[in-house]
Amino acid sequence: MRPWEANIRRVAPYVPGEQPKGEKLIKLNTNENPYPPAPGVREAMERMDCDWFRKYPDPAATVLIKALSKAYEADEERIFVGVGSDDVIAVAFMTFFNSHKPILFPDVSYSFYKVWADLFKIPYETPALDMEFRIKKEDYYRENGGIIFPNPNAPTGLLMPLSEAEDIIAHNQESVVIVDEAYIDFGGESAIRLTEKYENLLVVQTFSKSRSMAGMRIGCAFGHPELIRRLNDVKYSYNSYTMNIPSLVLGAKALEDERYFMDTLKKIRCTRETAKGWLKELGFTFPDSMANFIFASHRERRAEEIYMALREQNIFVRYFKQPRIDNYLRITIGTDEEMEKLYRFLKEYL
Amino acid sequence: MRPWEANIRRVAPYVPGEQPKGEKLIKLNTNENPYPPAPGVREAMERMDCDWFRKYPDPAATVLIKALSKAYEADEERIFVGVGSDDVIAVAFMTFFNSHKPILFPDVSYSFYKVWADLFKIPYETPALDMEFRIKKEDYYRENGGIIFPNPNAPTGLLMPLSEAEDIIAHNQESVVIVDEAYIDFGGESAIRLTEKYENLLVVQTFSKSRSMAGMRIGCAFGHPELIRRLNDVKYSYNSYTMNIPSLVLGAKALEDERYFMDTLKKIRCTRETAKGWLKELGFTFPDSMANFIFASHRERRAEEIYMALREQNIFVRYFKQPRIDNYLRITIGTDEEMEKLYRFLKEYL
Repeated sequence: MRPWEANIRRVAPYVPGEQPKGEKLIKLNTNENPYPPAPGVREAMERMDCDWFRKYPDPAATVLIKALSKAYEADEERIFVGVGSDDVIAVAFMTFFNSHKPILFPDVSYSFYKVWADLFKIPYETPALDMEFRIKKEDYYRENGGIIFPNPNAPTGLLMPLSEAEDIIAHNQESVVIVDEAYIDFGGESAIRLTEKYENLLVVQTFSKSRSMAGMRIGCAFGHPELIRRLNDVKYSYNSYTMNIPSLVLGAKALEDERYFMDTLKKIRCTRETAKGWLKELGFTFPDSMANFIFASHRERRAEEIYMALREQNIFVRYFKQPRIDNYLRITIGTDEEMEKLYRFLKEYL
Repeated sequence: MRPWEANIRRVAPYVPGEQPKGEKLIKLNTNENPYPPAPGVREAMERMDCDWFRKYPDPAATVLIKALSKAYEADEERIFVGVGSDDVIAVAFMTFFNSHKPILFPDVSYSFYKVWADLFKIPYETPALDMEFRIKKEDYYRENGGIIFPNPNAPTGLLMPLSEAEDIIAHNQESVVIVDEAYIDFGGESAIRLTEKYENLLVVQTFSKSRSMAGMRIGCAFGHPELIRRLNDVKYSYNSYTMNIPSLVLGAKALEDERYFMDTLKKIRCTRETAKGWLKELGFTFPDSMANFIFASHRERRAEEIYMALREQNIFVRYFKQPRIDNYLRITIGTDEEMEKLYRFLKEYL
């Protein structure tokens, strides 16, 4: 080992889903939205002036915070934004989880939680989901340094009723509880209103899924002004200007067209329900997803084998080679046409 | 104190320069470039398709890395990119400065270094600049957990000859040395070539100053592939996709027009030298800046007083209320017209 290597932080990074390129491929592997962002985004982009780029962006991200405040009927001082919900959650881990007690999150969940805990040297425990992949809320009724869980959970897609999420929060008023709502718009009720009741609750959302803006990297969090102020202290200690000008200007626009938003969500939910029927017919079992993906296992054929066969057809789904879930595929809901092509191929293949 | 507050990371954040808004103001406070980005950026923006945004960006930032590789004649595996050089340096602190020995940086320097060290709980010492604000290289010839210094230094603008920078690097092959070259293009010789000789050297640059892209938040680092690999491990443990699609596409374009780049740099250097003459005439003293700003103190009038008087005229410069430098103004080099307005006002005022 070279001497300077002694001081290096050693980590095992998160591996994001592939971003394969090409015209003809069907990309159902990273839970992107099959529909473009709200029409106002295009118009705002056409009005953007390159000369703006020579100046720093507003470090307080005011235009985006104001748009979120309006869209979610929340005070501006209750909102934080970052470079995707990954950045928001990373900052939240750094800010709130400085305890010697372990933080808690489900064993089968967003696999980045473990990576952040390792990066920041935060101890953690991972209560196991039950046999139907449900979070057992009682597992979270014990001493901890913080709690995070997604609702709906990923990669299962299962939604926990808001009342049960509230039970977990109510039992944990001595540490910060983060509800990661990346997929909430596809069929759940948000916990945002609960942040007015529980000052230790942070609710995280993203523009990457329901807002069709994965490529712009925008995430946000809602919580008590004291939580938001602490997040900003850490953010301003890391990078003054995290949001560039296009993400501020276009992000604000992406929130404006409520009807377009509702219409695309409805289309995706419709396609999801049709896809559930097809997958059942083909011999798959799956938890009843309320997200924009289905986490499915076939009764006879190995998930990895199906994954590889789909890949050869230029159909990309996500496969996790991890304990408990290594016989499942996470299939993002695409357009009706894309899902039909998937169905037709699988019908023939299986 | 509420119980959940016990686990909060307490930090004193960096305070960025103001981003005042308005048509008529003269903004010389955050070292932005007075000229727009390369013309190719505008064309690339016009060709950008909103539908791209629904998909995640390339996490490896390939298009931008390739453009940097070409522009700087460096292998792709020797290049790292981030959300401004602030993000790049923050990740580098987290990656390389994990020692119980103190890291070293100058007492008068980029004030974010201290903030990052505090955020990541890294011990540090700050050798004092000499009376002429020069870095004394011998101060860095001792045991340490890492070294960082800007060249030219900020806020002084003083350039250290590359041979002296190399002396510091050569004396410190047991820890990682970071040279922060945010302002190198305005008159210095880069240490990038030295990264081929010293595998523990990381050279950081930014698109915010010489490339006129502060609003896009793009920074980069050059170093041995092993350093870059380690930076990427930490980056992928924090946020898979830090660079959004516009920053990748437009950042790559900003590197293409070498002639435009050279022309704007020349204009800024010319304006700087004229401004030096004016400031001298008005009774200011200042180190001989090789950056896009001048760090000036008046023989008779207090810096803070001049700062306030300029503000009232809608002329914004930077004033740091910090030991040793609280009688200095950092004045960014704007256009000839802007500098002339500054000169005319100061002439009358002083």
